[in-house]
Parts: sequence; C-alpha cells; structure tokens
Amino acid sequence: MAKIVIMGSGVMGTAIAFPAAQNDCEMVLIGSPLDDHLIDAMAGADRVHPGLGVPVPASITLVKAAQMSHSHFAGADVVLLGVSSPGLSWALDQVSSFVKFRPILMMVTKGLDVVDGNITRTLPPMIDETLTRGLARTLPIVGVGGPCIAREIAQGLPTTAVFASGNLAVAEECRTLFQRPDYQVRTTSDLIGLEAAAAIKNLMTIGIAASWSAGSDRDGASPAKRNMNAAAAYFQQATAEMAILCHWLGGQRETVYGLAGLGDLFVTVSAGRNSRLGLELGAGALVSQAMAGPLEGVTVEGVETGLKLAVGLKSAFASGDLDPVALPIVCALVAAIVEDTPFKIQPEAF
Amino acid sequence: MAKIVIMGSGVMGTAIAFPAAQNDCEMVLIGSPLDDHLIDAMAGADRVHPGLGVPVPASITLVKAAQMSHSHFAGADVVLLGVSSPGLSWALDQVSSFVKFRPILMMVTKGLDVVDGNITRTLPPMIDETLTRGLARTLPIVGVGGPCIAREIAQGLPTTAVFASGNLAVAEECRTLFQRPDYQVRTTSDLIGLEAAAAIKNLMTIGIAASWSAGSDRDGASPAKRNMNAAAAYFQQATAEMAILCHWLGGQRETVYGLAGLGDLFVTVSAGRNSRLGLELGAGALVSQAMAGPLEGVTVEGVETGLKLAVGLKSAFASGDLDPVALPIVCALVAAIVEDTPFKIQPEAF
Repeated sequence: MAKIVIMGSGVMGTAIAFPAAQNDCEMVLIGSPLDDHLIDAMAGADRVHPGLGVPVPASITLVKAAQMSHSHFAGADVVLLGVSSPGLSWALDQVSSFVKFRPILMMVTKGLDVVDGNITRTLPPMIDETLTRGLARTLPIVGVGGPCIAREIAQGLPTTAVFASGNLAVAEECRTLFQRPDYQVRTTSDLIGLEAAAAIKNLMTIGIAASWSAGSDRDGASPAKRNMNAAAAYFQQATAEMAILCHWLGGQRETVYGLAGLGDLFVTVSAGRNSRLGLELGAGALVSQAMAGPLEGVTVEGVETGLKLAVGLKSAFASGDLDPVALPIVCALVAAIVEDTPFKIQPEAF
Repeated sequence: MAKIVIMGSGVMGTAIAFPAAQNDCEMVLIGSPLDDHLIDAMAGADRVHPGLGVPVPASITLVKAAQMSHSHFAGADVVLLGVSSPGLSWALDQVSSFVKFRPILMMVTKGLDVVDGNITRTLPPMIDETLTRGLARTLPIVGVGGPCIAREIAQGLPTTAVFASGNLAVAEECRTLFQRPDYQVRTTSDLIGLEAAAAIKNLMTIGIAASWSAGSDRDGASPAKRNMNAAAAYFQQATAEMAILCHWLGGQRETVYGLAGLGDLFVTVSAGRNSRLGLELGAGALVSQAMAGPLEGVTVEGVETGLKLAVGLKSAFASGDLDPVALPIVCALVAAIVEDTPFKIQPEAF
C-alpha cells in the first residue's frame, strides 16, 4: 500500500491519518518540536491523542521531531503538511532537508502569504517556490478543504472533504488513499480557489460572529441572545465577498459556493476561536483587548489572514483591481485588525 | 403618506408593520379569525403583542376579523398578506371580497401550491389567478424574503430583507415605504425564485438539522452534541439542491445564493420548528412519531412544502425534467414525509 508521512501531530494532522490508516496505508506521523507530549501520549498504552480524545490506530508509526530521519521519508508516496500555519516554516524546512524525491505534497495547513511587501497570495505558490528552488519541475500539491472538525474525523463521524490539485488526476490519486464510508472525498482542479476560500473563511467568521453579539443586550452565547437577522445578512454577504476575493487571488468564484467555501464557513461560524473573537468584537472589544483578555495566548487564524490580506488589498484598492465598496465586511475587519478600531456592524453598507 | 393594510396579526404580519409605521405610513392591522386575542392584547394599555413581547406603535389601527369592512381598505396603496400558509385561503377570500381596486399586493406568506394534481408551483401564480379571476390585468405582487426573525424586526434589531416583483419598479416603490436604518431593503425582479427559495428552505432545514443529530450519542441540542462536519456538507448540498429546484420552478439559481436563499437558510437552520423536526428525524423518529409527540399541534412548514413538492417531483422525475440523483437530500426528505420512512443521512450520495 501507499506510504504517507504527515508533518505535525496536532488535532488536524493526526485526525487525517485515521481514514488513510483504516485503508491500510503505511502511516508515519511526525510531531513538530512542540508536539513531543502528543507523541508521548499516543505512544502510551491507550494511544489516546489528548486533543482528539480517541486512540490512534496501532498501525501508525509515531516519530518525535528530534528523531526524524531520511528513513521515515523513504518511499513515501505522499508527504502531508498537517501543521497549523505557525508551524508551516518548520514543516517546509524539514521537507526541504529530508525529501529528496518527488512525492505528492498534501496540505491541510491553511493561510495566506505576503510577497514583496505588497502582494497577497495563497500558500501553494509559496510552498512550490520554497520546495522546488533549483528544481526543474513544480511539486504536485493537493490541498485538503471542506468542513473538518478534526475530532469528528477521528471518531469516524460522517465527513465530506474536498481534495484540490491543478492536476485533477493527482487529487484523484489521493482520493483513493483516503476515501472511506465515513470520509467522503470530492475532487476539484481549483487548488487556488480552495486555498483562498479556506483561509478567508476564518476572517469572515469573525465578522459573522460579531454581528451575533452586537447590541447592548446581546452576548451571542446562545441563539436566544444573538442577532439572527443581522447574522444571516452577514453570512450571505460574507460569501459574496469571499467569491470576489477568491477570484482576485486566482481561484474560481464557484468554489466559494461549494463545500470548501460555504460548507466550511458554516461549520467554522458554529464553533472555534475565530467565532469567539467575533463575539468579543461584536460586544465592543478591540482586537487588542480581546487578544490580551479572553483569547490570550490563542492563535486566531482569521487575524493572521486579515493581516496578510491587508497588504494585498491596499495595492488592489490603489490600482482599482478591487473596489472597497463591494467588500464592506472585509474592510471593516481589516480596519479592526490593522488599526485596532472598534468593529461596527453596518448592514446598511450592503 | 401611503396606506398599508396587513392581513393577519401573528408575529410576522405584526412585525412587518413596525418599519412602515415608523415611516409614518397609515397602517391597518387586521387579525385573522384566530387572532382576536392578539388584537385584544395590542388594544390594551401596554399595546404588547404576546408573541413579539414589545408594544406595537400607537399609530397602527387594530381590527378584528369580524369587524373588517370596506372602509378599512379604502385608499390602500398596499395590501400585505401577513398570515402563515394555513391562513392564506382566508386572507385571499377577504381580499377578493373587500378589495375592489388595484393595490400592490405584498406577501410574507410562504409556501407552495399544487395544481391539476400533478404540478407544483410557487404561490404568486396561484394568488394572481385567485384574485384576478375575471379581471383584465394581473395584480402587482411583491414577495418579501430574506432572513426575518419577527421579534428582531419589532425590537428594531438590524435586519435586511429582499422585496421581489416581476416589475422591479413596484418592488422599489414598496422599498421606499419600509426602508429604515434598522430595516434595510434590497430589491430583485426574481419573484418566483425568491418565493421558491423561501418555501424550500424550510424543507432543507429539516434535512440539515437531521444531520446534526444522527448517530447514537448525538442529540443535536448543543453544538458539542452535533455532527458539525456532516451538517456542513448537508448545508452546502442543500443550497445546491435549492438552486436546482428554484430554477425548475421558474426562478433564477442566483437567487438561492443571495439573501433570500442562503441568508434565510442560515437563520432558519439556527432555530425554529423545521429545525426541531429535523433533530427528531436525525435521532431516528419517523415524521409521524415526531408530529404526534414533541411537535404535536405544531405546523411545520417544511412538511407542508415537502408534501406539495412531492406531487410535482413525481411528474418531473417521470418526464426526465429533473434527475433524482442530483437531489439526494430532497428525495430523502420527501420519502420521510410522504412514506413515513426513517430519514437516513447519506453523505456518500453527494
């Protein structure tokens, strides 16, 4: 069977190992330098991943960062970037050092990249550039999108994901490795669109959640204390703005209305750190206050996305490539993040 | 100022009176024969509508069904159907009897209609047929769509709605009457698409909520006890199926991705009776069991929509106009409603 090496043993990197392991792929799970405790826990008698709460399949080879060697990568058909965005440069360094052949590079890591101080782009071109420096060919990259609460994948609860690659045959090849009755895989050739949607949905989630809690007697904690009408308008407007940005970044608008856009946005709004930050902003907190208070020490991916997006937006607004009037939620979020101003909901803008 | 007569003083009929009353329109609110207690309550000293929990503007004229007369309709610019679907035939009878001129007919009532025993259609052609029998001209109908929790409108919480009319100028005319800082109105000429999306979203909500609670340890009552991945896949697939049905019924697919589709679906899934029925079905109950148990005596609009849709779908599948393979959620819901079979979630079908 195929051999798959996963870089990063956090909840997402580990969870995605489950369907492939259940398909009898040879699995190697390599922890980041911050993951030693996770590897130790999974190597224990009960093999339970602390973040997932379920035992990992016994067939998975567990490796600490310091123990990593060329042998772990030997014969790998797929190397999968399973880290969250702050771990990406570590993971790419390791792949550069240890991987001397041409596996398929899958990625669950999501985010944006800034280049030349004024261009925002998706991760695949950056990764391709980093890993193929001096090589003649580009790397076959497969992005993994769609709504994926990691714990649910590990628990075997029904999940549908999207694998995207510029070369659809490569995405199909990966699909055969991961497809399970409880892990349904669709494929698309719109890698850039999928990566754009996956990154930007984290930012939009902050805005939607903020609309829930805006107003004096609203805390957004339960449906009864949420502005439902405003949030619905925000949800719809957010998809429209995602489609504009997705197209601008080189993807297809349609991808935003598929599982990797709409589906993922729906689940991200329902729970998680981006949503928590949004509730704080809606209640009147500044980003700085929320990040120094209730969300201290937490990485909120939508904030990172907002910072990276701000760079390219500035150029695009100046050149006329994008019209800020069509992006009221994005502009309000970027202002709140970059200038640390209060986020104000403004349904009259759309 | 304009005069607006609203038929039906339930939560929605009454709530929509607020923005127009605040714009100094002359408002007449006529209760259905089942609404006498509501009219009495609003005519009391505190003017509080029991379902809304807030006092209605003092300028609104309150009328019980039995007191209705031609004078209430004299000079009306707009007659608004504010009843829920079971009250529609009563409201249309009254309009036929009392309205001898040609006001704009607005409608918040949502549903589908069956004609000739094998055709499913949206409400506007039925209403037009009913009200213009023997007349030379059709009636200018304006559908009101978009995410509208009635209580939030009455509380002045930010809401965005969509007014739809085949004649966009008529929708614009209505917009000027209702537009408020906290009640933003967009317009579209896709009346049929808006009405189709508004009706079908109630049915799709049942399926999405069912995916939350499917599985042995899931009750769907709180986010922690919901299948988030499955629901996200269902949410996205539901929009795709709504677009197919919307187009089939004569509307535009794009309308489904707008506020009257996506936005309304988002808020409907979050709360309400369709969602409650879905949670029951996901947990294994039959429609008959849920409707005789936890939802006894409750009108679930998605069930009505499913029954009406089933008639037209049967013809459309037989003729090849629609392909059931593209509509797995709709088919599963219609089977559960019409044949009273268990609803089974099936992400592998899409």
